[in-house]
This record gives sequence, C-alpha cells and structure tokens, in this order.
Amino acid sequence: MAMTLVEKLLADHSGRREVRAGEIVHARVDMILANDVTAPISIQEFYRMGARRVFNREAVAMVPSHFAPSPTIQAAANIQAMRQFAREQDLPYFFEIGRMGIEHVLLPEEGLVVPGDVVIGADSHTCTNGALGCFATGMGSTDIAAAMALGETWLRVPETLRVVYYGRRKPWVTAKDLVLHTIGRIGVAGALYQALEYTGEAVRDISMEGRFTMANMAIEAGAKTGIFEVDEVTLAWEEGRARRPPRIFRGDPGARYAGEVEIDVSRVEPQVAFPHLPENTRPVSEAAALGVRIDQAFVGSCTNGRIEDLRLAARVLRGRRVHQDVRMIVIPASQRVYRQAMAEGLLDCFVEAGAAVSTPTCGPCLGAHMGVLARGERAISTSNRNFVGRMGHRESEIYLASPAVVAASAVMGRIASPEELGLTEKDFLEVAGEAA
Amino acid sequence: MAMTLVEKLLADHSGRREVRAGEIVHARVDMILANDVTAPISIQEFYRMGARRVFNREAVAMVPSHFAPSPTIQAAANIQAMRQFAREQDLPYFFEIGRMGIEHVLLPEEGLVVPGDVVIGADSHTCTNGALGCFATGMGSTDIAAAMALGETWLRVPETLRVVYYGRRKPWVTAKDLVLHTIGRIGVAGALYQALEYTGEAVRDISMEGRFTMANMAIEAGAKTGIFEVDEVTLAWEEGRARRPPRIFRGDPGARYAGEVEIDVSRVEPQVAFPHLPENTRPVSEAAALGVRIDQAFVGSCTNGRIEDLRLAARVLRGRRVHQDVRMIVIPASQRVYRQAMAEGLLDCFVEAGAAVSTPTCGPCLGAHMGVLARGERAISTSNRNFVGRMGHRESEIYLASPAVVAASAVMGRIASPEELGLTEKDFLEVAGEAA
Repeated sequence: MAMTLVEKLLADHSGRREVRAGEIVHARVDMILANDVTAPISIQEFYRMGARRVFNREAVAMVPSHFAPSPTIQAAANIQAMRQFAREQDLPYFFEIGRMGIEHVLLPEEGLVVPGDVVIGADSHTCTNGALGCFATGMGSTDIAAAMALGETWLRVPETLRVVYYGRRKPWVTAKDLVLHTIGRIGVAGALYQALEYTGEAVRDISMEGRFTMANMAIEAGAKTGIFEVDEVTLAWEEGRARRPPRIFRGDPGARYAGEVEIDVSRVEPQVAFPHLPENTRPVSEAAALGVRIDQAFVGSCTNGRIEDLRLAARVLRGRRVHQDVRMIVIPASQRVYRQAMAEGLLDCFVEAGAAVSTPTCGPCLGAHMGVLARGERAISTSNRNFVGRMGHRESEIYLASPAVVAASAVMGRIASPEELGLTEKDFLEVAGEAA
Repeated sequence: MAMTLVEKLLADHSGRREVRAGEIVHARVDMILANDVTAPISIQEFYRMGARRVFNREAVAMVPSHFAPSPTIQAAANIQAMRQFAREQDLPYFFEIGRMGIEHVLLPEEGLVVPGDVVIGADSHTCTNGALGCFATGMGSTDIAAAMALGETWLRVPETLRVVYYGRRKPWVTAKDLVLHTIGRIGVAGALYQALEYTGEAVRDISMEGRFTMANMAIEAGAKTGIFEVDEVTLAWEEGRARRPPRIFRGDPGARYAGEVEIDVSRVEPQVAFPHLPENTRPVSEAAALGVRIDQAFVGSCTNGRIEDLRLAARVLRGRRVHQDVRMIVIPASQRVYRQAMAEGLLDCFVEAGAAVSTPTCGPCLGAHMGVLARGERAISTSNRNFVGRMGHRESEIYLASPAVVAASAVMGRIASPEELGLTEKDFLEVAGEAA
C-alpha cells in the first residue's frame, strides 16, 4: 500500500508495516522536549502519575529558553524546578543559562534531533524539527509527562497537505516570505491537524535555515506538523552534527494526499502579515504604501534567529542607522549563533547601527521579557505569531516579516522593503540563504 | 576661610564666596538625570507643579536602563512616558534602547557630566559621577521635577570624611576591594550625609574606571556623595570626551573635616561582602575557606560593568569553563563598552566559557530582570547592594565582590579567589586597571 512520508515514518515508529491517515497509533519517540513554561507542569504530572525514572535520559531535553535569564521570581522558580529534575534524573541535556538557545534551534544544532525522528515537545513550535524529515509536533505538558515515563505517545496519523513550490525566487524573497505567503493563501486553519509537506523543485535550493523557518510556521496554518523530505542539503547539514544515524523516509508514488497547493515562487513578493493573524499577508510594496510607522523591530525567535537571518538583517543595516523613533532588538537564537554572528562582525554591525543585542532567549516573541510592548505600540517582528497581545499590551500591534524587511523597516521607521533603501539583487545574493 | 573640595564646589554653584558644612544652599545644577523607574514620577510632578519647559534641554538626561528592554507591559509604559516627555521637551539626551547604557556609566562616557559639575539624579547611585570631581547625589523624583523646571536645587552642605589610601596594592586587589574594605571598616552608616573624599597617594594609580567604582559605593556607607579630586588621570580620560570645559576645584589646606580614615592598601585582600549588608566584608581567603556554593555569578552594573571590569573577568575565565551548576551573566554597562569588549575578544571569551552576555541594562542588580533569583539561591555579584531580596526572592543571598573574584567563583562553583585557579601577579598586571 502506498504511504505518505508521514505515514511511513509513523508506521516505522509504531512497529507496523503500514498505517493510514486517521488511525490512532502508539509511536516510539526519539526526543522529548520541554521548556521553562511547560516543564514544571510535566515534571509535576510525571511524579503524580507514579513515574520514577525517565525512560531514557538521553531522549529528554530541558531548555529554559522562554523566561530566561529569569525576569521574575516565578520564572526563576520554574527554571529551578527544571534544574532540580535534571539533577534527579541525571539528564545530560538540561541546557543551563549561558549554554542555552531557543529549544527548536538548539536541539537540531546540537545534533540531538536527527532525520527520521519522532519528536514531541511541550511547545507548539516543536514542528520546526520537521525541516529535518522528522515527525515533530507539540503536545500538552501531561502528554509529555507520560511520554517521559513510557518512551511512546499516541496520536492520530494526520493526512498530508502537499505544498509544491516551483519557479525562481525574486531577490529579497526568503523562506519566511514563502511560508507567510502560503499561510496567507490557505489560512490559519488551512492545514488543520494535517501534515504540511513542503515540496517541489523550489525547495531544493532552500537552505536548512530556511527550511526550519518554514517548518516552524506549519502550526500557524493549523498543521500537526510541517515536514521536508531529506535530501543532500539535509545530509550535508547533519555531517559532524547528528549524534545518532539519520534515517530517511520517503513518500511512495501513488500515496493519498488530502490536497495539493501549487505556488509559483517567482510571483511571490516579500510578505508582511498584518495584525492579528499570520494569514493577513500583503506584499511589502502594498504595506509600505500604507506608511505604517513602527516603534519596535525584532529579529530573532525560533522562526528567524539563525545565522542566515542575522546575515540578512546585518546586510540591510550595514552603513545605516536604526531610525531614531525605533528600538531594534536582535536576539541570536543560540550561543553558537551568537558566537558565529560575532565572528562574522554581524553583532558589531547591529550595535553600531543602534540595535540592542540580547543573549539567546525567546523573550519578546511571546511578550515574556526583553522588549514587551506598551499600549498603542507597533512592532515588526521576524517571529511567528501576531495574535492580540502576543508581545505585550492587548492594544499593541505586530507585523510579521523576514529579517530583511524588519531591518529595512527599522531604518525607515515604517514598514519598508530593502529595495527602498537602494539594496540590489547583488546585495541579497551575498547573504541569501541558498543551499549550495 | 579654608574650605573643603565640596564646600568650594557648592559655594561656586550657589554664587557664594564661601559656604560651610551644615548650611542650606541653593545650588545651580549642571546635569539632571532620571531613569525608567523614577522619571515617570518626576515627569508627572513636573507638570503637576505647573512647569511647562525644562530649564535647559541639554541639562536633562533620560536613561531607561533599569527595566529595559522592557520585561513587562508596565515597564514598557514607563519608558513610553519618558520617550513622550523627551519628544515634548525636545531633549537631545533621551537614550533609546539600543543606544543606551546604565545611566551612571553612560553620562560620563558620553562627556555629558564633566569635572566640577553639580549632578543630581533620581537614583541613589548618582554619586558615581563624583569620580570626576563632581558633586553628585541622588534625590527623590519630586526634587528632580523641581530641578528640571528651575535649574537649581537646595541641599545641606555636607561635612567631608576623608579616606586616605596609601601603600601598594597586592595582586588581584581592585578598586572594588578597596571600597568594600572601606565600608567594612566604617560601616553602612559610617559616612551618613557626609561627602566621602577618596584621597591619598594610593588613589593616584587607580584608573578612572576604578574611581567610578569607588565613588559609586559611597552611598553604601550612607554618604551624600563620594568624590575624588581632579588629577591628570581625570583630565586624560576627559580628553575628546567632555562636552563642556572641565572645572577643577581643590580643598584648601586647613579645611575642616569630619574625620579621616587611613587605609594601608598593602594590607587589603580581595574582599567579599556577605549577606545582607555591604559592610559584612571578609577577606576572600576566609570566604573561600567556608566553601560557600553559588548558583549565579553576575558581572556588570553601574559599579563594575566597565571595560576594565570585563577585562579582569575575561582574564580569569580565559581557557576555563563556568562550573556546571552555575549560570554566569555578564552585562557590559553601555553599548560602547559592549563594542569595545567585543573588539577585544572578551565577549567571545565569556560565551565560550559558558556565560550569557546581555545587552546593557541594570537588570539583575535590582532583581528587575535578566537573572532574578529564586528562593534559596545564592549569587556572587559585582554590583553594590546585597540587601535582603535585592536580586529576587527574599530567601536568596547575595555576596558582593570584584569581577575577578566573581569570575573565579563562577569557575569553581563556590566563592574563590583567582589565585586558587593558579592565576599570578603577572596575569593580574596584564589587565589591572592601573592609571598609566
């Protein structure tokens, strides 16, 4: 029987020859993660259900990346609870502040998630890991507690919605723009409980960084997971990184799909998602024409805090200054990204331009700290959600865009495209995240 | 009539030929500052008292350095109020996030405070500026509001307590150790409402950075201000920096002092102030022998977040790792310090060692954000106050020390001296903040 990529992966992890979308399976999990918001609940439930030891200490990662370094006593207590659990259970992958990154950037980077894995996390953006050809999804803290004890979880095998990208991207169009455009097209419930499979000739030249960005936002279309098939780009990225052997699953010819959406990327402009839903996308030229003034510009998050994102933002900022009425906050997503960005002169470029550079944290993306918005303020952000009040006051506004558009807007003081600053295709190609 | 340094400075600013300790004077102020905790109240009072314009837009500095980048909606609203006031009053010295630093580091660094000034700030550590031979003191937000309108303030001329330092410092003994030792000797009320004048042959070879550290902590002995006489070190530091001409005041021979304390610096060891008062000082060797384990190590603040402080901490950390049970947080005190530390490879050293490096902020020093302590946690910190609950939970503990001792403790996981790590006098002299 012909199966989709996700069906084959879940069949394998369920010890079954075949599974079908719609079935409930019990799947073995390869990596479980929890953060400082969710782990304390998972830990409490873990002990309350009578569990004593995690099923495999190397398959549980604890990352205090949200309210860290702690902005409140409560946040400090949450991290303290994680730290104590990690000591009790002798977990090698508790990431202390200072050795930390945003969970969905850190785990792949550290080779703790590898192609073919089933990854579950007490965080909705766990789907980011699907960029590596994993089945990766977010769950509640109680599900995570059970999985930590048992090493497996139950789930309904999702149908797959294929998004087929073809054509050649215009300059300044990034993976972020493609996924925003996709969500604009199918809507925030367009892939409800489905696997969103990113495919087609145009994904081949998207770097791993870009693929993480796209898989990350699958949840913003309601998807259970986002996924890419493993290719040379994946395997090259894993070299010297994967701590377990990658496993490659492929969809069968003739597998059944819930649907297929075709996107000609040559017709996609850089996108801006207007408040208060990621589906409210408009081309940047249209957004720019509206003269939307901004107060804050944020580059970072599990969506766009990787090295290529920082290169793009720095390319736009180089030799320019952040607008006097704008505060710009740049947050490398991990200590590795931070060091790399420093070595490449990107951090110096940001500070010289008048931006604040923070230690890795989710921070402003969820209004946790490091740039919470006041009433009436407007932010443009590389993060993934522009829901009401997400970054602060419920009367603030969030516009989602790529690092390039965020940086250009920071300079202009209003939503703007890099091309308005005179930046050219050549400038873009210098730093564009194209797979080699 | 023979006057002290402070009497002469205040006589000048009061348009008087002479003033005496104990008199009330109305003094002209050269620079007024407020931060994001205090400015909103000052602004409200300013308008409430019927004022419309600040007396001199170049003499009012607004620095959102405490809860910034904002960790809460309330903090964001406070900064928003400052920003709006700065726009209304067309203040050139509102420092936006990203172009910001800790107020008492930023203002001297930017040449906005110059020798001979009277500086008042709605922040108790305004006394830091006394390192430049200024009369600098903290006041309430309402006093600041009045001064913003009138350009003057009233105060009682303080008596002066002279602390005379002589002898030659041992290796790893920094300005921080000298001031901690001084407070240990005279107590937290040892200079109540007095001017603490740091003098003697041994202050000559203390760099400006070190002098700022010492003046900063004058308030921790209860002093109204801390002050150094201007010398070649001061003037060399001001070159290319001062935005107004420095003015030099000196105490007269025969002036009356409230007292004199002599300190032989050759007998001072690196110091650690134990909870919960800065006067609870002990030599580091004694502290180390107690085996005090720590959870957090903080290098930064208006006391010790300058470039020399970071050089010292980095020298200790180079080639070493932060202890696995410790989180270390390093916060350069301004964007200028941040860039300099990056250029010198210090930030890379911190991150490589496993420390978090934040954008400039007061942050953890006052439990505002960026490393708040949970119940039962213990921090060693380069900041200035170890009061109950200052950095977080009221059942947490703070130990104050120099950047070198903090870094050594971060490596050992317990309070430790750099010499325990095998560091030598030569290592210290490489980076010691000695005036040339």
